[in-house]
Order: sequence, then C-alpha cells, then structure tokens
Amino acid sequence: MSEEKKEIRVGMIGYKFMGKAHSNAYRNLPFFFNLNVVPVMKAISGRNEAKVKEAAQAFGWESYETDWRKLIERDDIDMIDIATPNNMHYEMAIAAAKAGKHIICEKPLAMNTRQAKEMYDAACKSGSIHMICHNYRFAPAVQFAKRLIEQNRLGKINHVRGTYLQDVYLDTESPITWRTRKEITGLGVLGDIGSHNLDLARFLVGEFQEVAALTETFVNQRPAAESENQNEADKKQMEDVTVEDAAALIARFENGAIGTFEATKLAGGNLNGNRFEINGEKGSIRWDLENLNNLEVYFTDDEPGIRGYRTINCTEKYHPYAEAYWPVGHIIGYEHTFINLLSDFFNGIEQGSSPRPNFEDGLRNQILLESIEESAAKKVWINVSEKSNSISIKE
Amino acid sequence: MSEEKKEIRVGMIGYKFMGKAHSNAYRNLPFFFNLNVVPVMKAISGRNEAKVKEAAQAFGWESYETDWRKLIERDDIDMIDIATPNNMHYEMAIAAAKAGKHIICEKPLAMNTRQAKEMYDAACKSGSIHMICHNYRFAPAVQFAKRLIEQNRLGKINHVRGTYLQDVYLDTESPITWRTRKEITGLGVLGDIGSHNLDLARFLVGEFQEVAALTETFVNQRPAAESENQNEADKKQMEDVTVEDAAALIARFENGAIGTFEATKLAGGNLNGNRFEINGEKGSIRWDLENLNNLEVYFTDDEPGIRGYRTINCTEKYHPYAEAYWPVGHIIGYEHTFINLLSDFFNGIEQGSSPRPNFEDGLRNQILLESIEESAAKKVWINVSEKSNSISIKE
Amino acid sequence: MSEEKKEIRVGMIGYKFMGKAHSNAYRNLPFFFNLNVVPVMKAISGRNEAKVKEAAQAFGWESYETDWRKLIERDDIDMIDIATPNNMHYEMAIAAAKAGKHIICEKPLAMNTRQAKEMYDAACKSGSIHMICHNYRFAPAVQFAKRLIEQNRLGKINHVRGTYLQDVYLDTESPITWRTRKEITGLGVLGDIGSHNLDLARFLVGEFQEVAALTETFVNQRPAAESENQNEADKKQMEDVTVEDAAALIARFENGAIGTFEATKLAGGNLNGNRFEINGEKGSIRWDLENLNNLEVYFTDDEPGIRGYRTINCTEKYHPYAEAYWPVGHIIGYEHTFINLLSDFFNGIEQGSSPRPNFEDGLRNQILLESIEESAAKKVWINVSEKSNSISIKE
Amino acid sequence: MSEEKKEIRVGMIGYKFMGKAHSNAYRNLPFFFNLNVVPVMKAISGRNEAKVKEAAQAFGWESYETDWRKLIERDDIDMIDIATPNNMHYEMAIAAAKAGKHIICEKPLAMNTRQAKEMYDAACKSGSIHMICHNYRFAPAVQFAKRLIEQNRLGKINHVRGTYLQDVYLDTESPITWRTRKEITGLGVLGDIGSHNLDLARFLVGEFQEVAALTETFVNQRPAAESENQNEADKKQMEDVTVEDAAALIARFENGAIGTFEATKLAGGNLNGNRFEINGEKGSIRWDLENLNNLEVYFTDDEPGIRGYRTINCTEKYHPYAEAYWPVGHIIGYEHTFINLLSDFFNGIEQGSSPRPNFEDGLRNQILLESIEESAAKKVWINVSEKSNSISIKE
Repeated sequence: MSEEKKEIRVGMIGYKFMGKAHSNAYRNLPFFFNLNVVPVMKAISGRNEAKVKEAAQAFGWESYETDWRKLIERDDIDMIDIATPNNMHYEMAIAAAKAGKHIICEKPLAMNTRQAKEMYDAACKSGSIHMICHNYRFAPAVQFAKRLIEQNRLGKINHVRGTYLQDVYLDTESPITWRTRKEITGLGVLGDIGSHNLDLARFLVGEFQEVAALTETFVNQRPAAESENQNEADKKQMEDVTVEDAAALIARFENGAIGTFEATKLAGGNLNGNRFEINGEKGSIRWDLENLNNLEVYFTDDEPGIRGYRTINCTEKYHPYAEAYWPVGHIIGYEHTFINLLSDFFNGIEQGSSPRPNFEDGLRNQILLESIEESAAKKVWINVSEKSNSISIKE
Repeated sequence: MSEEKKEIRVGMIGYKFMGKAHSNAYRNLPFFFNLNVVPVMKAISGRNEAKVKEAAQAFGWESYETDWRKLIERDDIDMIDIATPNNMHYEMAIAAAKAGKHIICEKPLAMNTRQAKEMYDAACKSGSIHMICHNYRFAPAVQFAKRLIEQNRLGKINHVRGTYLQDVYLDTESPITWRTRKEITGLGVLGDIGSHNLDLARFLVGEFQEVAALTETFVNQRPAAESENQNEADKKQMEDVTVEDAAALIARFENGAIGTFEATKLAGGNLNGNRFEINGEKGSIRWDLENLNNLEVYFTDDEPGIRGYRTINCTEKYHPYAEAYWPVGHIIGYEHTFINLLSDFFNGIEQGSSPRPNFEDGLRNQILLESIEESAAKKVWINVSEKSNSISIKE
Repeated sequence: MSEEKKEIRVGMIGYKFMGKAHSNAYRNLPFFFNLNVVPVMKAISGRNEAKVKEAAQAFGWESYETDWRKLIERDDIDMIDIATPNNMHYEMAIAAAKAGKHIICEKPLAMNTRQAKEMYDAACKSGSIHMICHNYRFAPAVQFAKRLIEQNRLGKINHVRGTYLQDVYLDTESPITWRTRKEITGLGVLGDIGSHNLDLARFLVGEFQEVAALTETFVNQRPAAESENQNEADKKQMEDVTVEDAAALIARFENGAIGTFEATKLAGGNLNGNRFEINGEKGSIRWDLENLNNLEVYFTDDEPGIRGYRTINCTEKYHPYAEAYWPVGHIIGYEHTFINLLSDFFNGIEQGSSPRPNFEDGLRNQILLESIEESAAKKVWINVSEKSNSISIKE
Repeated sequence: MSEEKKEIRVGMIGYKFMGKAHSNAYRNLPFFFNLNVVPVMKAISGRNEAKVKEAAQAFGWESYETDWRKLIERDDIDMIDIATPNNMHYEMAIAAAKAGKHIICEKPLAMNTRQAKEMYDAACKSGSIHMICHNYRFAPAVQFAKRLIEQNRLGKINHVRGTYLQDVYLDTESPITWRTRKEITGLGVLGDIGSHNLDLARFLVGEFQEVAALTETFVNQRPAAESENQNEADKKQMEDVTVEDAAALIARFENGAIGTFEATKLAGGNLNGNRFEINGEKGSIRWDLENLNNLEVYFTDDEPGIRGYRTINCTEKYHPYAEAYWPVGHIIGYEHTFINLLSDFFNGIEQGSSPRPNFEDGLRNQILLESIEESAAKKVWINVSEKSNSISIKE
C-alpha cells in the first residue's frame, strides 16, 4: 500500500515548544489518518548545533541543519515548516516560496502587514501549498461549530465574544523571553494568543469591519532571561517588557455582527482560556480550549420549556476528524489540533489547493492585528475593511 | 418588643414587575431581619384605579392613590419608593425630596445627567435617606466579593469583564414596551440591564476613567403594544424600536484596571446572565446571577499544584446577609436581593446616613451611561472622570 | 374579591427551622398564588412560652399555645401543621385527625410503620386533607421532570441514582441534637435527608421492590447539647450518637428499574447535595438541589451529532409553578418549594382531595425506610413490595 | 545517547481498539519520556493475516505473526502485550511467563479467580515484569489524587462513590460483539468498564472488605454480529446477550470506608463517565474521565467562608507525568494514559520491579469481580477479604 503514497519531505525550522508540537504531529499523522500524501521528517534546523542535534533525535528527524538557508536549499526537502520566533517568519517564508517549497508558518504570519503581504504574494506566485498554524480551528468542536454555522443553524449572527485568558505572567519572577521583546515578537499577547482567538472569530463569524481597542503593559519589567543571568549578582538585573501583556477591543463585523475580545496573561485562574460565544437569531454556541472536546449549543427553536445550552462531546463520527481517533467519549488533547491541521495540509497538496487558514488568512489577521494596535495607540476606531480593501487580496 | 421599633410608612409608585418585587421585599423584611426601624406598607400609587386597587390588595398595601403627587403629599407617608418607568423618576424624586421623604428609586436614576444631578442635590439637601435599586449588589456572593477585595485578597486589580446577557428580544413577536421607547426609557438595554452590571463594576473595582463604546439596534421594529392591538387587523401594525438592544464597551478605570462590558437581550441561551470576572495580582473572582448563591474564587498564592477556581456556596454565616435566611446550602433567590437592600435602607434611617448605592451612585452611573452613549454616537473615547469631576459631587 | 375566598385557620406546632420555613410559606402563599382557599395564621404552639411567644410575633401568628393538645382542640383552627421532632408526629396527627382537622406533617411521617399506618388510617377516616412535607418535589425543575416522565419523554426507565450529601457532621465539635438521638428521631440521616431523596425516586420512578442496604455511624460521640452544657467543666462531656450518620443502598423497582442511593452528612464539599439522575431508554434527567432551578435533560433521539445534556433554567411559563414568581431567569430559592407545596394543599382543600405526597406516601416511605433499616441490620435483601402489600393501603 | 538505551523488543497480540491504543503508546513513549529502557515495536500477532498485516503497517510494527504461540516463542521478543478478548488472557500470559517474557495484559486479567491466580503465580515465578492495563490510574489527575491521599490531605476516608456510565448500548441496533458473549468476555459491563472504576477505588481507598450487588441485562437480544450477517435476510437474526449490561453494588472497605458503585452502558448522555468522589475527614476529591485533566479538590480546613470544591487543571509541573507533555493548560487526552502507564512499565524493567497495577492487582480485582458476581447471583453479602486471604498473595 505504501508504494502508492506520495511522500513529502519536510524541513522544519525551530525546535522549542512549537518544534515539539509540530514534530509530534508529523510523527502521528499517518497513524491516525490514512492519507495518500504523507510527510517524511527529513531535517530540522536550528542555530545551536548541540541542541538541534538533540532535538532531531528526540523528535525523530532524519538529519539537522544549523543554517536555515541551507535547509531551504536542500533538494531533498519539499516543504518548510517555520516554527521560529516571529521576526524570522518573513525572510524564511520568502526564501521557501522562492525555492518552490510548500510552507507551513506559525502565527502571527509576520511582524507587520507589509511583510505579510509580500509573503502572501510570494506564496501565491510560487504555486505551492501554504498554511498558517492557527491550530485551534482544528479542534473537532470548532470545526463542528463551523459546520453548524454554514448550515445556518444559528441564523444571522449578532454577537461574538471572545477571550484568550492565561495567567502565566502573574508570576513576576517569570523572566524576559522573546515573547516580551518587541523587536523579536512584534506584538505581545495580542499576537501570541489574541491572534488565535481573533482567527476563530474570522473563521466562524466573518471579516472584521472596524475596531476600537486598548492595550496595556501591567508588568513593565521582568528579570533578564536566564542565559544572561548566570551569576548571583546578575539575578536582580531587570529588563524592560516592550510589548503589551493585555489587550481588549470592541468590533463590528462586515456582516453586521458586533463583538468584544480580550487577551491577557494576567487573568489568575485561567490557564488556557481560549473561549468564544456566538449568538445568532436561531442559536448560540460556546467553546473553551480548556475543555476542547466539548461544544455547547443552544437552539432558539427547540421545544419551549426544554430549551437550554446542551453540552456536546465532539467525539462521535458526526464530528469532523473525530473518527480518526478513539471511540466516543475518549477525549483527544491539545496536540491533536496540529495533527488535524496537517491532515488538511497534505490533503491540500494532493488536491493542489491551499486549505484554510492559509497565507491569505495570515495576511488578513495581520491587517486586523495592526488595526488593533493602531486603534490602541491613537485611541480611535480603525476601519479594518478599508485597510484590507486597499491591499489586493485575491479571493 | 414591637413598641420599641420605629415604623416608617412607605408609599410606593408603580405596581408592575418592580412593584411586585419591592412589595414582596417590604412584606418579608421584618420576617428575616430583626430591625429597629421597620416599614409599614401604607399606600401604593398608580394611574389606573382598577389595577392599582387590585395591586394594593394582592401586594398587601393598606391603601392606594391614583395621583402620585397626592401620595407624596400625604402626612402619613415617611418614604417614597419610585418603581416607575424611567421618565418619571426625576419629577417624583424631586417632589419626594422637597417633601422631606426618604427615597428609594429604581435604576437608572434619571433620563440624563442633568436630571440626576438635580435629584442628587435635592436628596442631599433634604437630609433624608436615599438609595438607588441596584439590588444585585446585595446578593450575598457579591457582598462577599466586595469584602474579599476590601481585605486585599485579590491584590491590585488588573481586569474586569462584565456581561449582562438575556435573550428575551430574540422573539421578534415580542411587542413594543416602554423599555423600547426612547422617550420613556431613555436608554435601552444599556440603562435597563447594562446599568446593573456597570454598577457592580463600580462597586467592586472603582470609578471608570474612560470608555469607548458601540451600541446597536438589531431588531428595529416590533409589533405595537398589546393594548393598542385589540382587533386582528391591528396585529400586523409595527412600531419602531427607538433604543439600542445591544451595547459593548472597553474601559479604563481610575485605579489602572481595564475592562470589557456588554449588554444585550439577543444572546440566545442566556436567560439572565449578569456576570463578572475580576482578576487581580493575587486572586480572581467570578459571579453569575443565574446561580446567584455561588461565588467562584481563585487565589494565586494557594499552594502550587492545588490552585484552581473554587466554588463557594455563599449560604454560611461567614457570608453577608446569609444568616438571615436558611441553614447552609439552602439557597435564596432573586427576590432576596431586594430584602437585603431594604435591610440596609432601614438601618440607614436608624443611623442617619444613606447606604450605598445611593443617589451619588445613581448620578455617577448616569454620567457613565451618558459617556457610553456619547462614545457610541461619536465613535470616540470619552473621559468619564473629567465629566464626573466637572460636576460637584460631595464625597 | 377577598370575600369570595375561603379562609383556613392554621395552627402550627413547632417553631425552629421547619417552623420558620412553614411560617414563611403561609405568609407568602397568597402573595404569589391567587387561590380561592387561603390560610390564616391563627396560632403557633410550643412548650417554651417565652420562645413560642417570640416566634409567634417574629413569624406572624395571631396567637400561641404552650400545649399542642389545646391547639388541636381549638374551634377556630381548621388545620394542623406538625413541624416538630419525629417522635411527636404520631400522637399529634392522630389527635388532629380525630378532631377532623386538615393536616400537614413533616417527614418522616412517623417513628415506624405501625405508627404510620395508624396515622394514614386516621387521616383517611377523618376525610380531611393531608400531606407530608416532602417539599423538594415542588421545585419547578422536579415537577417538570415528572411531567417529562409522564409524557414518556424518557421512555422505559432503567436507572436511577440518588444521593443526598451534606457535610455538617464533619465538624466533630457540632453537638448532639434531637436528630442524633434515636428515641426522638427514629432514624438518623436516612430519615432526615435520605427520606427526601427516596421520596423523589418514588415520585419520579415508582415503587421500590427490594433493597439491600448498609448504614454506618462514623462519629460515635458528640459534645452534649448546648443547653446541658452551661458551665465550662461540662463542655467536655460527650454523649453517644445513637443513629446512623451515613447510609447506602441498591434497589430494584417494581417497574424493573435499578437504583443506587446514598445519604450522609460527612461528604465534605457538599452543602445540600440532594441529587438524582434518571436514565430511560429515550432520555435522561439530572437535578441538584444546590442549583434547584435547573434541570438537565438529555434525549436519545436528538439529532445525531448534537446530542448532549442540556441545562434548562426552569423559570419559564412552561415550568410548573414558575409563573407565580418572577420573569425568566430570575431564580427562586429553597423556601419557595414550601410555598408551591402549600398551593397544592389549599387547592386540595378546595377540590376535596389530598394532593401528593400525602399520608399514603408517608406510609410507603416509612415502609421503605424500615426495609432499609432492616436490610442493613440483618445484611439481607428486603422485599419492600411484599411489606407494602401486607398492609392494606387504598390506592 | 541512544547507544546507552536498553531496547525491549515488544510483541503484541491483538489489533483492534486496544491494539491501536497500545501501539500508539509504544510509538509515542520515547517522544515524551526520556527513558533508559525503550520499546522496539517488533511484531504484532492476529489470526487474520490480511488484517494483521494491515495493522502492522498502520500501527508501525516491524513484522507480524498469525499464531500467537509463535510470537511468544520468538527469540527476538522480550515482552508480550496481551490486547485480546478476555478468554485468551490466561493461556497467553501463562505461555509468556513460561517463556520468561515481560508481560502487559489487558483487563480484566482473566475469566475467573483460578485463572488469575495461576497467571499471577506464573508471572511471579518467571521473575519478569508484569502489569495489567488499568490505564485510568495514569491520568495525571488520578495520580495527583493518589498523592494527596498519601499525604493524608483527605484524612481518614469515609466515603467513595464510583460510577462508570456509558450509553452505547441504548442503540438496540448495535450488534452482538465479543463483549456481550459470556464465553468470550466472562463478565459484561462489570468486567469491561466496572473493573476500571473498581480498580481506581482499590488504588485510592484500599481493599474491599465486603460487597452486596445486583446485576441486570436490560437488552436481552441484539442483532447477530456483522460478519455473520452478510445478506439482507440474515439481518433480522437476533442473538442472546449472555452477560449483564448493568451492575450496582454497595461495599465496605477494610479501612472502614463505605462505597457505592455502578457500571452501565445504558445511561443516556454519559459517553464515558468513569467518575469517583471520595470524602475524607479533612477533604474530598472528584474526578471524571470525560474531563480527565481536571481534579476537583475540597479541603475541610480551608478558611471558613471560602471553602468550596476547587477545579485543578492537572497540567502543571506539580502534577505527575504532566511535564512530559505541553505547557500548563494544554490538555492531554485519553491515549496519554497508556503512554504514562508504559513509562512506569519500562522504568520497572530498568529497576527490576513490577509497577502497580500488576498481576497482583489483576488477581485482587478478579476476586472482587467474582465476589460481586456471586453476591448478585445469590443475593447475599460476600466477604471479599476472606476470599482474598484464602488465596496466598505475597504482599
């Protein structure tokens, strides 16, 4: 059977949290999905040779590189997975596109709209398959929510309220990382976790029309990162946090819905609260990443007297991706969202079209993030639709 | 024992939903609280004699009036309870204050800030006791939340997110009422339910500094009210909804916290979702009116590994007002929030000072509501603190 | 209007927890329900004159007695409410029945089956209206559950699991009360709280056929009661707990369902966990007294993919008794279960028939409790149906 | 680094649900855990060559066998994983033990106590490492519960209530499988899912002393299995269900605790409700497999007024096994319980001792299951301790 399968040789850049999550997904994809196009874990790239060598072995990559440009140039690599800090996405993706490789890129797509547009154009021009890693779209419950909306089970949507609440930054001893440095990360929590929640709103509700936002940095300084901190005297050295650690916004959507959104890493008691509630004329849905297998659904036209939010454990054959895994009620976890995303990616290669979310979504999200940032900075409403329309995005 | 008790003779204006809720509270107050100052249900007032007479009997009032001015003038009335539509509050409260009566007024205090300021000034000048009926402050769980915050159990507060979600307006057959007519109600859902949620934020977090808001009217027309609708032909007659049925805002507080707020009656599956979550540096709290006896509390400095939101059923002697009722775990309901409020009111009469929330809170809330309305209309941030400071409010 | 209403003059015996709860219900019944037969709170009875006098005033009774026999004999008393410790129910109910009074009696009906049968026979013979105070049947959610079952919405019932979990006895300093003394209470937690949960099973599922049970007394001694404990030296005096503080059983029902039940006051974290889940061939329901307004409902024949327990807030006009109170989503509390029960009682007087649960239910429950006690003592299965059949109960 | 690792060559028998779950665990174990002893997926065995060949490829096994005896005899196999229907466990485990192989065996261990005792003796005699696959012990939340109990955080345990509720058998069209045939499965739901829940009770609370039980078969016939069902006429052919589909019991534990337990596949709305609540003198815990990352914990000695069940998301470094996976709040799923179990198994090989649960647990569980079966059949209490004591089990 395997002789019929087309193998795609993957080169991945990055070996930390996302590197581990992506590696795990490549490893397990063929176990759960019977695809005609399958990944081969060819090479991983990172600057620190000792660490990337260790990662290659631990994660199951055949080889490693210490120069990502060499990785992209390799003839035995068909696709590039960019799992690096944000400031590297642009250069890498452009290079990969020019080299004609398929591309998966972590979110947010770029440091700004200009970069994102170039990346999108390059990817389109290359004709290769591209996706952005908004993996939470791929929880079966979220995909099922999408299906219900497409079937008009919620009717016209009036409201969406989204939050992504974590509390890791409450620990003021937690040191500076690349995620708190503007030159590396671009945006703070807004780009890191907010972008995921906003992408879900775009996926499920549609395009944003306008936003009014605020951002805040509650913890302005943190201990310098560990590596610069080797002797005791240095431990007290503090470094500035140069990005926001909280953001909030109100929004109007092009279809008339209104929304509220918030992202923070200072919400005690919320470990990974990527949540949304959507209210339409005919029904409502609620979801929470901390309990990612469940979707709560309400139908206005249920029989009077027995109307109420119902909790659906999305592990039945009726729920997208669920059949790949275990019998009903045997829940999957965070990591499976990546596996599901990859199944779409490799199916996309087979079919010759880029599945959503792709670089177009990355670009649209970037425009949205930049609008939010601008709104917060200038304290004005920003028209997202106008910004998007001013950029030629092919539908 | 009763000879020692001071009796306060109450005259109430209004006999519908709020009239019933207030009447119930007066009736039951002495049963649950052993007060030195107690109400006597002297008279109820309403324009329709048949209906007010029926209400007087059903609710337990000794007499009735069809002219509220006569009620206020009666020598055997010591306090006036204003439970009417919003457009009447101003005139009634001013008259009651001038007559030297104690006053309880339903929320929102007035149709605009100018009215509210006059009412506040009149009440202050009269020296009588005054309160505004933000009854949800008086859920034991909310009062307990206040105590935890005052004890600095949450530390410096960074976040508050409040929603008041109902779904009664999803039924498009639901007719026009005074609550959808701008000339009677002033604001729509923002004043009706949003004001409750915003008052809780002021109570627990502090004063708003600035807001950016949007409002929306999703259902623009509704069937004309029943009374105008007697024959079949009339039933199709539609009337304009002249107020918002949804509102959302982001905010900064004077103490540096940031917040998001939303009020709507189109959120399917939410019957009475007056909710908040507050995150401080040391802890968090969550509350939901639909389950009003419970407070969820999280402490950052709980032992590592066993940190998590805990659900507290606020029916123990440690929780404000709870001892007045039943043994632990025997929950109270919506109506008891009014009884608790009244216990503060009559204690206030005994002690000679107006308990919170009083007309100062009503005025501050009105300034806030007007700021939100203005922000939504002009699509700009509005500085609430400046507005408040420009009005001489005694602290 | 009031001249058309028939007044029933009530005499109540007992003035503690249940005395307060019943008094509150009589006071509020006419406020919420527009009945043709209404109570007049004529007299309360208790042995301690100072306390009963105080209770009469606090609870709103016109007069008091210190001898319950005199109360029953009074010509101006039409019904007797027995809210005393269990060992007094028998004598009082027999006397009340002989005097031709209507009777409400607290649960459990009696100290044993023999007493209960006599009480039942006396009540039947008297022709008066009688009920037993299993008030939890009267939560709107429970009555709605009953309706769903009667409409065959759950299909044939296979399973019921009931628990009544409290934790008040975890405090080993909590003193001896009449509820821990066998000679006064008969059974311990089984009679006190277990009987409520078992009554719900009988109400919703049907008659028990056979039971196998265990009981346990985990805390064998407690400080002597406060009243005997006046000087410091006495405080260390301990007294034996002579009843069970935990009980568990498995059961078969006459209709083929099977069940598990448990009652305890040592289940930390459970303040008032009177709960059940019922599973039928077509659907399931769940309820929890701590959140008494909600009923969770599952239908097997819901559309595949969107099956799941839904949470129904039973405050809509579709839910029994709910219209008597507040708009949707404005929850009621513990005390309203008594008001609802009384509305049935006084309607029963008007219609001339005893509403359920009446003394027949009290007797059947007593047989069930005695079967459980016997099963636990002898460590054998006990056939409840046979016991019931051997006693002539009219259907 | 890999040259230092000791490789254990695995042979697995069975390729259906458990075969897939175990295969997945072997594949992923080295990815998440840095072990010194690691599995090599050498061979899988099954009777149907086409299917086992396909499974070998899909699941990642190097080779396959169609005769399990040959698998066990292979010199290049160090351990045997028995993932077959229950009636084969005995013969296979005995053969594997005699061949000196390490053994993992699915639950329940055997068809009866006699078999289980022989298997236990053979495993002890062989000196190899053995475990039984009660994988739910290995949810981080369950292991954390165990740690809390060992630290005496709950105090003396009084209560345990366990249920394992599924609803797959509500579909009466669901055909006969080996799990409904007594000759293959031994026990029905009691052995299949009940055994998991009872094992958790033994793990967390201790050994059972005595039980009183009932069992029931609600659905007596089901369509014949698919394979025998190929033409349309056959489809109506029904076959008897020869095992129970529901079971319930009450129990006493050797340490004085009491318990209630239930297992059923007819509890609509419960997809995989493997749940327990344990109440001790100082605290309580609750767990639910459907939300397996969470543990709910209550402490009696928490500060008065803020006592309540708290929900702990067991994804922090303080929780057993959690560090092997993802950052806090990024939940794991069902399959990871097997990976955690295997990490203990291979650590056990390194350390030379069989981790729990091992064949001793399998034997003790078998005695317990047989006691329950006997109790239900004879309708008497059965003393489990006596049965266990009569069998020489080394501690």
